[in-house]
Amino acid sequence: GRPLLLIAGPCVLESPELARRVAGTMQEICGRLGLSYVFKASFDKANRTSLGSFRGPGLAEGLAVMAGIRDAMNVPVVSDVHESSQVPSAAAVLDVIQIPAFLCRQTDLLQAAATTGKPINLKKGQFLSPWDMAHAVDKIKSVNGSRVLLVERGSCFGYNNLVVDMRSFPVMRELGCPVIYDATHSVQLPGGAGGSSGGQREFIAPLARAAVAAGIDGLFMEVHPDPDRALCDGPNSIALDRVEAILQQIVRIRSCLE
Amino acid sequence: GRPLLLIAGPCVLESPELARRVAGTMQEICGRLGLSYVFKASFDKANRTSLGSFRGPGLAEGLAVMAGIRDAMNVPVVSDVHESSQVPSAAAVLDVIQIPAFLCRQTDLLQAAATTGKPINLKKGQFLSPWDMAHAVDKIKSVNGSRVLLVERGSCFGYNNLVVDMRSFPVMRELGCPVIYDATHSVQLPGGAGGSSGGQREFIAPLARAAVAAGIDGLFMEVHPDPDRALCDGPNSIALDRVEAILQQIVRIRSCLE
Amino acid sequence: GRPLLLIAGPCVLESPELARRVAGTMQEICGRLGLSYVFKASFDKANRTSLGSFRGPGLAEGLAVMAGIRDAMNVPVVSDVHESSQVPSAAAVLDVIQIPAFLCRQTDLLQAAATTGKPINLKKGQFLSPWDMAHAVDKIKSVNGSRVLLVERGSCFGYNNLVVDMRSFPVMRELGCPVIYDATHSVQLPGGAGGSSGGQREFIAPLARAAVAAGIDGLFMEVHPDPDRALCDGPNSIALDRVEAILQQIVRIRSCLE
Amino acid sequence: GRPLLLIAGPCVLESPELARRVAGTMQEICGRLGLSYVFKASFDKANRTSLGSFRGPGLAEGLAVMAGIRDAMNVPVVSDVHESSQVPSAAAVLDVIQIPAFLCRQTDLLQAAATTGKPINLKKGQFLSPWDMAHAVDKIKSVNGSRVLLVERGSCFGYNNLVVDMRSFPVMRELGCPVIYDATHSVQLPGGAGGSSGGQREFIAPLARAAVAAGIDGLFMEVHPDPDRALCDGPNSIALDRVEAILQQIVRIRSCLE
Repeated sequence: GRPLLLIAGPCVLESPELARRVAGTMQEICGRLGLSYVFKASFDKANRTSLGSFRGPGLAEGLAVMAGIRDAMNVPVVSDVHESSQVPSAAAVLDVIQIPAFLCRQTDLLQAAATTGKPINLKKGQFLSPWDMAHAVDKIKSVNGSRVLLVERGSCFGYNNLVVDMRSFPVMRELGCPVIYDATHSVQLPGGAGGSSGGQREFIAPLARAAVAAGIDGLFMEVHPDPDRALCDGPNSIALDRVEAILQQIVRIRSCLE
Repeated sequence: GRPLLLIAGPCVLESPELARRVAGTMQEICGRLGLSYVFKASFDKANRTSLGSFRGPGLAEGLAVMAGIRDAMNVPVVSDVHESSQVPSAAAVLDVIQIPAFLCRQTDLLQAAATTGKPINLKKGQFLSPWDMAHAVDKIKSVNGSRVLLVERGSCFGYNNLVVDMRSFPVMRELGCPVIYDATHSVQLPGGAGGSSGGQREFIAPLARAAVAAGIDGLFMEVHPDPDRALCDGPNSIALDRVEAILQQIVRIRSCLE
Repeated sequence: GRPLLLIAGPCVLESPELARRVAGTMQEICGRLGLSYVFKASFDKANRTSLGSFRGPGLAEGLAVMAGIRDAMNVPVVSDVHESSQVPSAAAVLDVIQIPAFLCRQTDLLQAAATTGKPINLKKGQFLSPWDMAHAVDKIKSVNGSRVLLVERGSCFGYNNLVVDMRSFPVMRELGCPVIYDATHSVQLPGGAGGSSGGQREFIAPLARAAVAAGIDGLFMEVHPDPDRALCDGPNSIALDRVEAILQQIVRIRSCLE
Repeated sequence: GRPLLLIAGPCVLESPELARRVAGTMQEICGRLGLSYVFKASFDKANRTSLGSFRGPGLAEGLAVMAGIRDAMNVPVVSDVHESSQVPSAAAVLDVIQIPAFLCRQTDLLQAAATTGKPINLKKGQFLSPWDMAHAVDKIKSVNGSRVLLVERGSCFGYNNLVVDMRSFPVMRELGCPVIYDATHSVQLPGGAGGSSGGQREFIAPLARAAVAAGIDGLFMEVHPDPDRALCDGPNSIALDRVEAILQQIVRIRSCLE
């Protein structure tokens, strides 16, 4: 089969140095394990729970950092867009354009992204069934032949909690798209820490193992050298020095499915 | 107490004639019943389930129709915006700016709307607890003193279904904002009709009665002269000739709370 | 229309004196307000969250207390059974036999209760849709013509939380049974207080008003002279001296539906 | 590590021959794969959705079949009890006593089962969080030292649907009990087929793989030679001739965790 895709990086571009460090370490790990690596970071966290939270360097500065990583390290890069007006600049730099989960039904944004011809990393809304992603895929495919990756990141389960319904992997694969499991956002507790989202880091590894055993094409992870000091999504990030051990098991489990 | 606010109109601006007819009829009914009336219609349905669905006349033409209704009939008008770039034009016409539920955490959009100084009709995301709306309100209040109306329109309850948790009314009132019940979107079955959302029109009246008895400051309703032929949200719209009977009961129930 | 039915009493039979006091006060209130009153208390709480919780006086002693109240005060009495073997003794005393929500699919218990010919107060499981209660009703009706009352007491909504879906009232009425709203168990937070269930007393009144406005035939309430000292379900009980004010509003709202 | 436990058999004892055939085939497969096997079947399905459904041979006849299988084939047997009065007879035959999910909070039943000293296979209610199973375990442990196995069989997710929250495995393991995944009941659609529960057989294998990768101590499965003709739970049963292929993958995945 194809190698597992790994989309990973810090939640947000905190500094160019941190971004390069994470990208470099992940690239090495993926090289050792035979994974296909894409660097991910957000230039702007446009939907933080609270106003006071760190948002990132913004579009221009952030894309410059992404371009630097891409060129210096020869690694493809992905980031997320929030309004149609951001798409042209983003597409000039990014290899893959990501649509945030809350925005997966915004027709204009989906179509603006599709117009670029770039592959789209489309997160499934926490409020949507996996089969309803067929309509979001159609909105993209109607514009051009962009490759669409579908990302599971948990479904609403009462208040301030998400559940990962692993039936979504076979369901979304039926839509003809590679399926990615977002191993770190799926363990968020939205709003669960008062003015920000809490997270359950201890469940990242078992759920990631489960997802790969259920059958996925890629994993998405937020990785940080020091999650407890991360400026975004620390509670649900993986420490950089713990990633390789988790991925080794993931790779072994995946080989059992062949 | 203050009179109940009624925000009502067709889901989307199908034609200027239809919009004026609905606005006129609703204005008369609200006059007879002592309700405060605001006309609502969308100029663009930017997040329809499927691509093939009718979206509306678009920003410029739609706002012209809204302005016409406002001026000719002396009725305040509200419509929804989807990207920050739409906000200035919208604010030039609208009395109230509405933020769609899926977008209630998009900081830029909330702040762009707040900058106008107009009151904001803020729908609670189907994926959010009522207490988490505190953060969305803060994002608006931090910019200026815009009045914020908070709208309950149902919470995710498994796939393709919504439930109205009526505890949300007292919870959101604690945030210091008037609370509105969206009586028609709350009975949607998202994606439940295949390529569009289904609806359970038969539950509109009992749930609206329940909401007013629980304690709300306003009602939001999609109204159409012929719901079965509506170009959007027909399955969960109320027929124009059935509205008055429902509202009469609503008004009577509300008077019991005083 | 028929007068509203009120099923009310302490959660569990703490002492004969307390039970008589509650029954007497409720009987007076219901007389003043024109409500049809049934006294309810459990002789055994067979499914408390934790082992250490108070369970009640047991079958024989509890039924004797119920019989005493019934005879002395001329008020019908209802209590719940948990195993088929309890049914004959219970039916010798009770006017109505109640089936707990967790047990609403236990065929033997339903049929044992139905065999007595007594009316059955059947709670809807927190895990069941309102339309699935049709099968539970059939299990009873197949045995004899017992009248079945269907009780809404909340549905699972994530962990440690319940939501009241008020669509259940019209749905269950379609099954040909009177529909009761359990206003106090519906605000439980199951397991939410560690070793026992928490409760949100502040939501009892708004949700009860909402239910009666949506359309119900009866209300069920746990009432206690001092809820903070109740041996069971205190967090979701109403104080005896606050009941009449709530019921007055309920009666007024109900009169608006005629 | 310890070998994986496999609890498997037909949903209900349809006939002694069918039961022996399933037990024999499963024993052979488990021998080949190094799994620890326990035969499971119900003597009475006491909580079928509808009255007309097949319930099984009943207590006496059913236990005789179970005893026959146990003695002839030297395989431990488990079955479920529904009222305390069944426990003594059941304990005289069964190696493990199972408590159904709906009944996991019934204190008397739990304690009657615990009194026998037999290990208890305790299903987590569809309405309970995994951490709330601590209280059910306490109810058993307070009586004697019975070993308790905790079984995940899905959580309520809206109406007529269940979701498997794989966080429950590490959570319940923290309670000091082996954790079992019920791979076939977890794909039920309760009430989803009108008068009976539907099922999604296609998801049994991916979810079972996921569970074993997440980390479990045992699997529970309903197995039938011809699921489409099974008298109970056919839609969510595995065909006998497809079991070995699924278990081979399960065993391989489990070996990756060591």
